[in-house]
This record gives sequence, C-alpha cells and structure tokens, in this order.
Amino acid sequence: MTDDRKSAICVLGTGLIGGSVLRAAVAAGYDAWGYNRSEAGTRAARSDGFDVDSDIEAVLRRAAAADALLVVGVPMPALDAILSDVALFAPGCPLTDVVSVKAPVATAVHRHELGAHYVGGHPMAGTAESGWAASTSELFRGAAWAIGVDTGTRAEPWTRVARLALDCGSYLVPVVAAEHDRAVARVSHLPHVLAEALAVAGAAGGDLALGLAAGSFRDGTRVAATAPGLVRAICEPNADALRDALDDALRLLTDARDTLAADGALGALIDAGYSERDRYDTLERWDITGIRPGDHDWLEKLHEAGQRGGVIRELGA
Amino acid sequence: MTDDRKSAICVLGTGLIGGSVLRAAVAAGYDAWGYNRSEAGTRAARSDGFDVDSDIEAVLRRAAAADALLVVGVPMPALDAILSDVALFAPGCPLTDVVSVKAPVATAVHRHELGAHYVGGHPMAGTAESGWAASTSELFRGAAWAIGVDTGTRAEPWTRVARLALDCGSYLVPVVAAEHDRAVARVSHLPHVLAEALAVAGAAGGDLALGLAAGSFRDGTRVAATAPGLVRAICEPNADALRDALDDALRLLTDARDTLAADGALGALIDAGYSERDRYDTLERWDITGIRPGDHDWLEKLHEAGQRGGVIRELGA
Repeated sequence: MTDDRKSAICVLGTGLIGGSVLRAAVAAGYDAWGYNRSEAGTRAARSDGFDVDSDIEAVLRRAAAADALLVVGVPMPALDAILSDVALFAPGCPLTDVVSVKAPVATAVHRHELGAHYVGGHPMAGTAESGWAASTSELFRGAAWAIGVDTGTRAEPWTRVARLALDCGSYLVPVVAAEHDRAVARVSHLPHVLAEALAVAGAAGGDLALGLAAGSFRDGTRVAATAPGLVRAICEPNADALRDALDDALRLLTDARDTLAADGALGALIDAGYSERDRYDTLERWDITGIRPGDHDWLEKLHEAGQRGGVIRELGA
Repeated sequence: MTDDRKSAICVLGTGLIGGSVLRAAVAAGYDAWGYNRSEAGTRAARSDGFDVDSDIEAVLRRAAAADALLVVGVPMPALDAILSDVALFAPGCPLTDVVSVKAPVATAVHRHELGAHYVGGHPMAGTAESGWAASTSELFRGAAWAIGVDTGTRAEPWTRVARLALDCGSYLVPVVAAEHDRAVARVSHLPHVLAEALAVAGAAGGDLALGLAAGSFRDGTRVAATAPGLVRAICEPNADALRDALDDALRLLTDARDTLAADGALGALIDAGYSERDRYDTLERWDITGIRPGDHDWLEKLHEAGQRGGVIRELGA
C-alpha cells in the first residue's frame, strides 16, 4: 500500500480474459508479458505488439527474476499443467487467477504447494467470443472483480492483485471461494444452461419460429454462442452449486408450468421475477472503507462487508 | 396493389406497440390517428403532436367515414371491449391487430362478426418498457412482421396491412394463426418465463450474487423487467402452446441436471444449444416472389413459403 511503483505482471494464458488482462495492464503502465501455449495465439499477440511467448520455462524464469505477479488465465482443464510449471520455475511469485470457479482452483493451488502467495480472483466480464482476437484492454472497465479473502490470504500478494484489478478499471468484491462459487452458479453458470435450453426449445419450432424470433430470444440465447468446450470448462467444475441453482430454476418453472396447465395462469413467478430483476437493477454497491490489508481481522471484515454488498473502489480508502 | 395512394390508418390503443405504429405510419406519410383509453396517454401523445383522442365513438366514426385501416393495439384483456365498439361504429373497416397471440384474437374477431375484413398481424419487436412514452417510429425497422394468411383472408385488406407493415420498415412473415402461436410460444413467451425464473434463482444468491452478476445474467433477465401484467397478457392467452414449450425446456434442463449430478457433466445440451443458436444466427430469410394477393391459391402458397422461412420485402415483387 506504500509502494506506488507498479509491479511486473506475467499472464499465463492469453485468451479472451488473460489477453484482456495483459492489454489492460500494459495500458495502465505495468511491465507486463505473457505466455500462450499455441504458436498461433502467440503470433497474434506479438503482431499486436505484446510480449507473449510460448516457452513456459523462459516466461516463468523471467517472472521469478522480476518477482512478477502471476495471473493464471488458462481454462480449468489446463490448470494443473500450468501450476506444475509454476511450482517448478517460479514457486515464490505472488499468484492469482482469472478462472471462473474458485474452490477447485484453490484446491489445485494448494496441491501444488503454491498456497502461501495465492489470492483467488475472478473478473466478472466476458463475451460469447474467446481467444486473443476477442481481448480488449477495456473489458474490465466498470466490472466487478471478485477477490479472495479466504483464511490464510496474505496482505502483500492481496494488495498487488487488488491494485491490478483496480488499474484494469474494475471494482473489487471481496469473497471467499465457496461463497463465490455458489454465487456464480446462480448468476453466471445458470444463465449459460438456461440459454442453451432456450436455444434448443426455440429452434424446435423450426425456421418459422427462428424467423419470428426477436429481442427476447436473441438476448436470452446470447451466451449459447459461447464455444461448448469453454461452457463446460466454466460450469462443470462448479457442478454441486450449479445443480442447486438448476434445482431452484426447475422448481420455479415446474410450478409455473403446473399453474398454467391447471388455471391458464403463470402464477407467482411473474411478479417475483419482475421484483428480483428490479432488485438487481437498483442494487446499491456501497463502498468499503477503513479496512487495511494486514490489519487485525482484515480478511474477516472484508468477507463480511462483501457479503453485505460492499465493494472496494480504491486502496487505502 | 394498383393504388399507390396511402390509405388512412386508425390505431386503437397507443401504448408501446400501437403508439409506435402510429408514429411510424405518420412518418411514412399516412393520414393516421388513434384512440387511447387513458386521458394521460392521450395527453402525452397529443403533446408530442399526434392526433390521439379518448372518445372511442368519435375516433371510430371518423375511421368509418375515411375507410381507415383499423389497427388494434390494446392488450388482450381489453380486446373484447374494443371489438364491441368496432362492431358498433366501424364494422366495415379493414381490421388488423398487433396483439401477440393470434388464434384467440381471431376467435374474438369472428365472435364479433368482424372476420370478413380481418387480417392478423404481429410485429416482432418490443422492449421491456411499455406505454406511449416508450414508443418510437423506428421500432419496427428491420423486424419481422407476422401477417395472417388464414383461410378466408381477403386480398384487399391483406394488401393494406402488408403495405403498412412494409412502410413501417418491417419485412412480412406470412403465417396462419395456430402456427404463429406455437412459434411465438417458443421464441417470445418461453424467453419471458425463463427470464423470470433466472431472476428469481439468481437473486436467491443474495446481494453478493447480484453484485457479481454480469452480462449473462443481465441479458438473460432483461425481459423480466417487463410489467407483470403485460407479461401475463402476452403469455397466458397462449397457454397450451407455452406449456408444450415449457415441457421441452424442462425436459432439457432436467436431463442436464441429472447428468451433472451423475457424471459432473452437462451432457448433450451444451453442444445442441450452441448449434441451434448458430442456426438462428445464420438463418437465411429468402424472399418470396411471384405470389400476388388474390391469385389462385395465394393464401396456401404464402403459408407454405412462410413455413419454409420465406419473407416478403416488397409488394408486387
């Protein structure tokens, strides 16, 4: 909190999210570079003027020498391999990630004995596209960026992750892994599954139905355009929480279906949906102030503030 | 088809859709006026420079004298009262509507013995807002406008409705009432119900979840911001078709839920959803040509062409 010099950033995996972190970090004045597994992805980033390499050992040795903050941006199935390399070549670097689900990432990080310098992260932004070509330095502007406040998190790496997220234009939502995963099951993973079901049930009406489709279908199916492998990589590691959210949705839809069949009316769902959408539209994100990383009980205090809708818009506020 | 003079238009109900028809008709050079039940709605339209009155008898007598095309834009629960007035004061006018569901409107029209000059219509456009204040002359530009080709439809009123829709900037999708209603159950009414369920299941995660919600939740719940009474008025008259669509969605979601519980995987839904969204994105709307209203079998030919995804972009093409 006292050092205003921007630290080095090393992004591992430069797809849509990781690539956007790299772009945003460079735009914010960080010394930042990255790793991408594919030669094509590396070439695309380099031709855009970014320092991206496909030699993981070289990239990580450089990070270790510079004490760079490592930002893991690979999809979940590639996480283990990347963490093995981190443990081998840069085990002392501060470490965060921008992978959707948090508890499975934390488990993997601890399995690789990288927990001491780890802080979970999850910027709540994205598009239906993927890959470096879709990345942009503005992706995170005005977005929530979930930041881990799990027991044992250390103040120094936490502050570096927080500063990066704020410098990317986001505000911070402090959250512990299990609660994060239950929340995103409802507001990120469930929307994906419902969009897929709507696309299939809509298209079952044939070209006539698709030809009559307008805004409600277009918006309701937008995220179904996400590559299937990516949807699985995002949703399936959160299977338990997603199953609970799906059970809730199934119960609501079954009730509406049954009252429709019995009385020709959709019942309570319509008022409840309107009311909850309004709650979302009018949600107040109040500013957390006066809690400094490293202070007594700072993790518990931030955790509790995050649960009550608090966000952090600047460090040292 | 031979008369290029623009006929008079009388819009009954100047909310979001009817108001937008009135604006678009005036912008296209029609002599157009309207009726609104509420004094406030009437005043708002008049202060914007439009000829709207709350005296239904005067409005309809003027329409009868001018042989105006009547465009019914009231919500379903108000339909019967409006048709009673039409039967009383302007029974000979050509008649169309912009109410969502088509078979119940046709039934009501025939009950009031107004079927001879009736052509069903449904512009596939809207927003989550409602009322005159939300109306705009551009609402229908580039949108599909479903137009009835049910048995018994006459060429003269059909041509007038078709011309109005084209002059509003839409293209025509010829369809019969029952098939229209089954189609919109899937691409318009089901999206509303899923959006309501998502809003409720998402908000069940509390302020933390809503605070982490981003594009997928925002887009997936957009139409849940529609006034509950309007959602019911749109969806509930189509209860049978909507129940079928809901059953399909429930089956797809239950399967995904069960494979998630059994194997931790979402199964076939993800690929199917991606594929069907792509089908929607790449749907070819081919142009129907060479079928003239009043020609032998014109209704059957247009019906069949509409089923195969054909649209009409100009009359006499």
